[in-house]
Amino acid sequence: MIKANDITRKSWIEYDKETDFPIQNIPFGAFKLKNQQIHLGSIIGNTIISLSRLEELGYFESISIKKNTFHNAINLNPFLQQGKAIWRVVRDRIADLFDQKNTELQNREDHKKDVLFKTDEVTLIMPIQIGDYTDFYSSKDHAMNVGKMFRDPENALLPNWTHLPVGYHGRASSIVISGTNIKRPCGQILPKNEKLPIFSKSKLLDFELEMAFITGQGKELGQVISTEEAENYIFGLCLFNDWSARDIQKFEYVPLGPFLGKSFASSMSPWIVTLDALELFRVKGEEQNPKVLPYLQYQGNKNYDINLEVFIQPKNQELATKVSQSNYKYMYWNMCQQLAHHTINGCNINAGDLMASGTISGPEEHEYGSMLELSWAGTKEVQLINNENRKFLKDNDTVIMKAFSQNKNIKIGFGEVKNQIIS
Amino acid sequence: MIKANDITRKSWIEYDKETDFPIQNIPFGAFKLKNQQIHLGSIIGNTIISLSRLEELGYFESISIKKNTFHNAINLNPFLQQGKAIWRVVRDRIADLFDQKNTELQNREDHKKDVLFKTDEVTLIMPIQIGDYTDFYSSKDHAMNVGKMFRDPENALLPNWTHLPVGYHGRASSIVISGTNIKRPCGQILPKNEKLPIFSKSKLLDFELEMAFITGQGKELGQVISTEEAENYIFGLCLFNDWSARDIQKFEYVPLGPFLGKSFASSMSPWIVTLDALELFRVKGEEQNPKVLPYLQYQGNKNYDINLEVFIQPKNQELATKVSQSNYKYMYWNMCQQLAHHTINGCNINAGDLMASGTISGPEEHEYGSMLELSWAGTKEVQLINNENRKFLKDNDTVIMKAFSQNKNIKIGFGEVKNQIIS
Repeated sequence: MIKANDITRKSWIEYDKETDFPIQNIPFGAFKLKNQQIHLGSIIGNTIISLSRLEELGYFESISIKKNTFHNAINLNPFLQQGKAIWRVVRDRIADLFDQKNTELQNREDHKKDVLFKTDEVTLIMPIQIGDYTDFYSSKDHAMNVGKMFRDPENALLPNWTHLPVGYHGRASSIVISGTNIKRPCGQILPKNEKLPIFSKSKLLDFELEMAFITGQGKELGQVISTEEAENYIFGLCLFNDWSARDIQKFEYVPLGPFLGKSFASSMSPWIVTLDALELFRVKGEEQNPKVLPYLQYQGNKNYDINLEVFIQPKNQELATKVSQSNYKYMYWNMCQQLAHHTINGCNINAGDLMASGTISGPEEHEYGSMLELSWAGTKEVQLINNENRKFLKDNDTVIMKAFSQNKNIKIGFGEVKNQIIS
Repeated sequence: MIKANDITRKSWIEYDKETDFPIQNIPFGAFKLKNQQIHLGSIIGNTIISLSRLEELGYFESISIKKNTFHNAINLNPFLQQGKAIWRVVRDRIADLFDQKNTELQNREDHKKDVLFKTDEVTLIMPIQIGDYTDFYSSKDHAMNVGKMFRDPENALLPNWTHLPVGYHGRASSIVISGTNIKRPCGQILPKNEKLPIFSKSKLLDFELEMAFITGQGKELGQVISTEEAENYIFGLCLFNDWSARDIQKFEYVPLGPFLGKSFASSMSPWIVTLDALELFRVKGEEQNPKVLPYLQYQGNKNYDINLEVFIQPKNQELATKVSQSNYKYMYWNMCQQLAHHTINGCNINAGDLMASGTISGPEEHEYGSMLELSWAGTKEVQLINNENRKFLKDNDTVIMKAFSQNKNIKIGFGEVKNQIIS
């Protein structure tokens, strides 16, 4: 039992019971004050907590974290480097400190004004310096859909797909935080039935509904991380929108994979929810047939039941339309398998690497995780409220993704990743 | 005229005229002393220069570099961030300081013992913290060879190849310095005529002869760097061995590109030779037909005449065999085009990004830049001295790559990237 997860615990910070961030969540992020000072933080309900100030004021002196883990740090990497045992004692300590029964900080009005902020007093910023970014392709429904559309409906999956979690290296520099505008990219596009490419703005701009996990410090180059050990190296998860320009990607991607069709931007939600906080929501993954090689076999429930939603909100409209409703539990390859595969050749993993799932589609049409699938390669319209419709995304559309796990006792949410497309 | 390139200049540091590092070179690197202290450095002949100590002792006070550009810095990134004008004044200042006519340091024995080191007193280390790593595929002879072997000899190039510099994102974490041993990777391999992959050590381990350029700080996300501006953002070049496990790559790479077949290791030479130092060796590139889109067009000579060599040295043998002799001038797509293409979708570039050329093969058989091509996909043996031969690399083989530009007046060299394969 992870102490911070105690569902009977109540906080002296008040919040609505539908919040994504009850005291049982305690995610990690970073923010900037109006004076541009950078803080590392957590959130309970709508109250932002400065972990930097908590460390400065001595509230972490009872636990053995390194000096300047949060205070004077500008991202979570120094914390990520310290490993799972430290991640746990910090999260436990935060849960204790904000427990209704704990008066240490609760009764210190002088400290509370330095530590606690309202959401409109801060700007959330990138919480980690991402070293390497890997994108997997681990949803079977998504891979099947793409295969049916562009290859052979009878042999939709390529021969390697059921044997290993296919993945590729992505561009880390262009990963941005929720709230950042996404500029429609230009590139080379081959018009239908033409032989020569033209230079154009992308006409087939798309989202991809993904989750991403953030790693702690791995092993040295040449070492492997087994499926059994993998969870020790996974800090937590966030929402991830792998923006894609389908027309640019289509012309460029053979034979070395996606490049400019993706690297113009990816966006992530600002709060990293720890793997520990999701403990209650473990579920069994799909049975893998054919049987996988020993290094990809695993014990126990390694999938997570996390509801996923995508909304499109056109310009000047108050209402957003939910266009997709999927679930992270649909992943064919789980995080432990992804990490074991990534390191089986000896590749080293650093604290702050980001590994995204690939588009997470479910078996039903309304569960498809991209416009490519929802519009079936542009052959049908996706209806929005107010008589709008879309095959792909238009300028000024805002795309909002949300994620949460919920049972009858508790909701653990991820907040959202929300970005507007600009021309 | 770049002042530091003056070919009439002589240094008070003595060196052989065949050195890679005359006073007209002044490359940049990093090293560790026996006491583990990290220094940034340059080299003239066989003498290693601590730039960290030079800054500490005040020798850079006459130029406007930021404090701790070298002193207390652990890599060149703070220097790279300052841009081309600063790169030039620093290189000019170093050339002046070591000029025969300059006595500032020459007559200070007390300072010289702190600043100058013999090569056996130091260990060269990774000179940059690489943010993102991109690998291009820009040698036409290489792309043709691969196409002839694995696709259609009559249509060896894919339709996009002559329209854009094909590239993909690589793994930055596993880029290591010359001297690091390379562990033969394991992975999934599909044996010939089988339907199921097996788990195995790679049997088709290969080198790829490449050059890589290192960037300065680019523009913000959403901005482009034109071919005309590109050289302002390119700091310098090094040798790059893009180690490849052909059998692992073959099974995994469809449809998202190379992953574990490459990410087990890449290696680079320790000294970054500035683009400025290569000024005398600019040459015209191959005429591009079909004509490229306007954003890829360029003026002037953007290729460089750099001789490239690859040697294989089996275990317990004194002699290494030269197996390939190529030239960087064979690149179909030049660095300016690569950088313009990389940013045309708005992708941002940071100081310390590394962009590799892809295997550089020439038109002749002895100019092929990989064992895959030299052995023509394993259909013939490459002869080594002492009656050894190879189709791919064996355990304990050492692979050595060298590069240098030379005319009747001057030689500007890169040193070497040298790594041994271990099992």
